[in-house]
Amino acid sequence: MEKGMLPLTCKGFTACGIAAGIKKNGDLDLGMLVSDRPARAAAVFTKNRVQAAPVQLDRERVKSGTARAVIVNAGNANCANGRQGMDAARAMTAAAARSLGVNEDQVLAASTGVIGAPFPTETVEAAMPVLTERLSENGVPDLARAIMTTDTRPKMAVREGSADGVSYRIVAVAKGAGMIRPDMATMLCFACTDAGMAVADLQSALRRSVDGSFNRITIDGDTSTNDTVILMANGASGARIESDGDSATFQRLLDDLCMDLARQMVRDGEGVSKVVDLTVGGARSDHDARAIADTIAHSPLVKTAFFGEDANWGRIIAAAGRAGVFLDPDRLDLYFDGVQMMRNGTGCGLDAEDKAAVVLKKPEFSVTLDLNLGVGTASMLTCDFSLDYVKINADYRS
Amino acid sequence: MEKGMLPLTCKGFTACGIAAGIKKNGDLDLGMLVSDRPARAAAVFTKNRVQAAPVQLDRERVKSGTARAVIVNAGNANCANGRQGMDAARAMTAAAARSLGVNEDQVLAASTGVIGAPFPTETVEAAMPVLTERLSENGVPDLARAIMTTDTRPKMAVREGSADGVSYRIVAVAKGAGMIRPDMATMLCFACTDAGMAVADLQSALRRSVDGSFNRITIDGDTSTNDTVILMANGASGARIESDGDSATFQRLLDDLCMDLARQMVRDGEGVSKVVDLTVGGARSDHDARAIADTIAHSPLVKTAFFGEDANWGRIIAAAGRAGVFLDPDRLDLYFDGVQMMRNGTGCGLDAEDKAAVVLKKPEFSVTLDLNLGVGTASMLTCDFSLDYVKINADYRS
Repeated sequence: MEKGMLPLTCKGFTACGIAAGIKKNGDLDLGMLVSDRPARAAAVFTKNRVQAAPVQLDRERVKSGTARAVIVNAGNANCANGRQGMDAARAMTAAAARSLGVNEDQVLAASTGVIGAPFPTETVEAAMPVLTERLSENGVPDLARAIMTTDTRPKMAVREGSADGVSYRIVAVAKGAGMIRPDMATMLCFACTDAGMAVADLQSALRRSVDGSFNRITIDGDTSTNDTVILMANGASGARIESDGDSATFQRLLDDLCMDLARQMVRDGEGVSKVVDLTVGGARSDHDARAIADTIAHSPLVKTAFFGEDANWGRIIAAAGRAGVFLDPDRLDLYFDGVQMMRNGTGCGLDAEDKAAVVLKKPEFSVTLDLNLGVGTASMLTCDFSLDYVKINADYRS
Repeated sequence: MEKGMLPLTCKGFTACGIAAGIKKNGDLDLGMLVSDRPARAAAVFTKNRVQAAPVQLDRERVKSGTARAVIVNAGNANCANGRQGMDAARAMTAAAARSLGVNEDQVLAASTGVIGAPFPTETVEAAMPVLTERLSENGVPDLARAIMTTDTRPKMAVREGSADGVSYRIVAVAKGAGMIRPDMATMLCFACTDAGMAVADLQSALRRSVDGSFNRITIDGDTSTNDTVILMANGASGARIESDGDSATFQRLLDDLCMDLARQMVRDGEGVSKVVDLTVGGARSDHDARAIADTIAHSPLVKTAFFGEDANWGRIIAAAGRAGVFLDPDRLDLYFDGVQMMRNGTGCGLDAEDKAAVVLKKPEFSVTLDLNLGVGTASMLTCDFSLDYVKINADYRS
């Protein structure tokens, strides 16, 4: 069983989310994910040169390969706060550690929200008794809510597998309502599994899943100051991931779970009305295909045309043409879903436009550009650029 | 006399613009700029891999170093039209050549508008008698109007200088209502001077001016399918640009004229309500400074914050941090006009926010980021990202 109505619980893990008063509007804004025993811990962080205090702290702590808990807040990114920011991140984990009765260096932290606002350490400390009291094996949905900023929906996913006949689960929450790059909002994901495995295997599985999911909607190295993905494995199910077969199954489940969350993020992207599966094929290399897909996926002209439900394929090939890699304009084929818009670099006429108009009205569709040069390919998940995106981001701090 | 109320005329040149029926709304859409004698011709074109038919044609023809005329239309980019597109571009120049009584290869062409729509060659040919009849030494404003697409104002500039006591003028028209990159709209500029000079000098002067102006609001290599800048010099004033001193003066005037037009473009950018002079200084190299300025200038989060008059400096440093070059977050200083927002990587507090709120309400202001690492510097002209930008570009073809 991989999907369906699995409960969002994972043996040995509890979670919670409360309204601590960090957000002005009274929404949930503080959460924890806790293992009842030491868990193997793996993490992937932003590559941005400017890194929030909790990211700097976690980078050091996760080197030990184990963790007991993650504490996370929304409403304040704790970034660009200088020494006060690092003190605040430490204080937040120290308070959680005291409350949980674990070592401080076994607690990881994450923050999301406005950059450069002083961190409300006292508010977090004051909330700690209630936060700890609320920890529950059914607390994952509250945790998912507590990490939302401009997200309109909480994002959760669960997968179940088995190793040697023993079943295990992977459960995760995520936030990220920016459009496609975490450039445009902070992306966070906290996952836990009751399977047991070596920390090196856990780390490599997480890296691979992130590359195939969140990095398909983001871009390598093009990340915000706070992006954090953490995966804890506590072995409480008794399932051990050791054989190649079991590792492959775990990887597939984790890939699928991360892609599920990535798609939830794009669907709930700020102001998004269209989700677009973009594929560039026939390039001379995967690198070339990726460069072109990246340029198309981020072109404001292309994205506003999607919003306008306008099959303006000229903007797509204009974006492709400036991606900095070789293409032959006279060999380009372009499709919206199954409708061919361009053949050998020339438009397919009004009939194709009429058919494309129907495709563009759908909430999700695909765009496929074939360069007809080689076997390089790349795919990305992108979206439109809407009036609501501008409204949301013009008013964010007010 | 460099600025002021100089007439938009240039000896030996005539211009015109008419409504030929290419645009559906009856606006001016076809124009010419003609020299009464062979002129030296220099040009700079888009670096996009996908190039419109007239760009391909001009690239070949301008190699001769001389031209008599440019014919240009708005309403159709004549791009991605295959062989029919190239035939159309040739037909357009052939019709102009016949009407003017000059050789076809002395006529250059440019087009702007929707990509991939069949080119209305017969409409252009039918309009040729009227177009030629309207040629006038006072026709530059009509030409400026005839090349507009989403521009709300025609863009013109004139400068006057002298060489050896003989005065000359440089007159130019431009279009380009995309925001900052011609990615976002086609940029065209047609300039003429009645000074005389060697074609090699003309070409190098044009390249240098374009790099210092249009490429400060665009990005090297990041251009649309149709971008074209053409400068013709016919010597009709009797002024000869030969000495180093005269060349330097001409360069300065041409730089100033191009920057004037570039600023007009940003001010009239699609939906623009804020024009921002962005400077990145103290980088380890000019290249590093340029990379950071580019990333900040194109960040949708930064641009929507400008639109919202929100001094959200966190987004600026987050953009700087993902530019792919080295910076030390703890050494960053940031200013909005003269107001310091960030010192040594930490925000300057509520007093600075209050002062910045006043700056952000202005229609034009500066943003200065100092990395405090070296002497590398770069400046760009950027703008906000508004609701109207999305509206304009979602509805462009409808």
